Amino acid sequence: MNLILVSAEELQGNRVQLSDRRLQHLREVHRAAEGELLRVGLIDGPMGSGTLTRLTPALAELELDLDQPPPPPLPLTLLLALPRPKMLKRILQGISALGIKRLILINSYRVEKSYWQSPWLRPEAIREQLILGLEQARDTRLPEVVLEKRFKPFVEDRLPALAAGKRCLLAHPGSHQGAPHRLQEESLLAIGPEGGFIPYEVEKLEQAGFSGVHIGPRIQRVENAIPLIVGKLYDNF
Amino acid sequence: MNLILVSAEELQGNRVQLSDRRLQHLREVHRAAEGELLRVGLIDGPMGSGTLTRLTPALAELELDLDQPPPPPLPLTLLLALPRPKMLKRILQGISALGIKRLILINSYRVEKSYWQSPWLRPEAIREQLILGLEQARDTRLPEVVLEKRFKPFVEDRLPALAAGKRCLLAHPGSHQGAPHRLQEESLLAIGPEGGFIPYEVEKLEQAGFSGVHIGPRIQRVENAIPLIVGKLYDNF
Repeated sequence: MNLILVSAEELQGNRVQLSDRRLQHLREVHRAAEGELLRVGLIDGPMGSGTLTRLTPALAELELDLDQPPPPPLPLTLLLALPRPKMLKRILQGISALGIKRLILINSYRVEKSYWQSPWLRPEAIREQLILGLEQARDTRLPEVVLEKRFKPFVEDRLPALAAGKRCLLAHPGSHQGAPHRLQEESLLAIGPEGGFIPYEVEKLEQAGFSGVHIGPRIQRVENAIPLIVGKLYDNF
Repeated sequence: MNLILVSAEELQGNRVQLSDRRLQHLREVHRAAEGELLRVGLIDGPMGSGTLTRLTPALAELELDLDQPPPPPLPLTLLLALPRPKMLKRILQGISALGIKRLILINSYRVEKSYWQSPWLRPEAIREQLILGLEQARDTRLPEVVLEKRFKPFVEDRLPALAAGKRCLLAHPGSHQGAPHRLQEESLLAIGPEGGFIPYEVEKLEQAGFSGVHIGPRIQRVENAIPLIVGKLYDNF
């Protein structure tokens, strides 16, 4: 936890009281003491410092001075074939830590139907992982996560509006073109499931304006592939 | 498992018999049938195909035709502060899948001493994770892993020879310079522990010719930071 995140509802003027895992972290990992200055951020708001004005086993009280903007959002929307549930938590944290602010989890032929039933897809479960990523990265803006359980209606009806004016890239092993570097424009990046999108899906994405790009001769797990390609595409986000 | 890896000791001419987790994978995940052609690689050797000539609950026999070179190694040596044991397995797999062929796990002030006692640092445990990474990536060359338990003697006595003729980069949050893209030369990349290298360590690395570079305004976990920076530095490896 490199940043203590608080929500607007928790604020009492410029003070906040913590009694949950953040208190535990302050006491057990950070070993904070009264008077100490800590990094604090307001979810979807500014960040800055908090003075620890009171610390008991049951409660931490902070006086906030939040005067800095969070880092700029990564100008990238990620379309990701729904990963298997046991990977989902870590992938959501990683996406949030990278500064990606819009994630669309999509269906694909190779996504097992049961994955859509995972309790880790409940809004509060998703939010929890996204917050862990922001705390790690020192960021405050919560990513928006959309679930698209049907590939065809999504690609035909909603993707065109999303894609308008953006560089549309499909990370696809075997593409002839390498991923571009240091984009200046906004992008929409599609990453398939284990085993890849099937030819029909690739075709539909190409029809929607996506170009296939590779990220090298090796096949990466999705949790490696995302930072690998994001690193190429953008700097300073 | 995108590639079945076999070792030279297992070969009987151009045949190999499998009875371990690879057999289990063939039967349960791949659901292979006799006569099927599978992707096979020889550890530290060529890759190609194997025809499944026999499949029983106790044994799989493959006839190999290995005529392709593995993908080119990434021209990067990674100096990594020893991660906490629970992260080590995944990080080793990821490094191996990225094509990194030389990893030096180093000590740092912020590496807990107990980490060096982890059973996951035994050579056979490290090898197991590296092989999982190669199987994922479709590669055959095993990375070399060196453990350097003392920072100062390593940096003073052995690092200069390693650094000679290479671009030496230190991934360090707060550096003014962003990480370069698309290097043509070999590099030596140092990544610190959670919380970063301490100033003394940064100074020693700078004296050894390292330049600090950042990977954006956010703080990444090491398992995200490695592919993020590798993606910037190299293409087509």
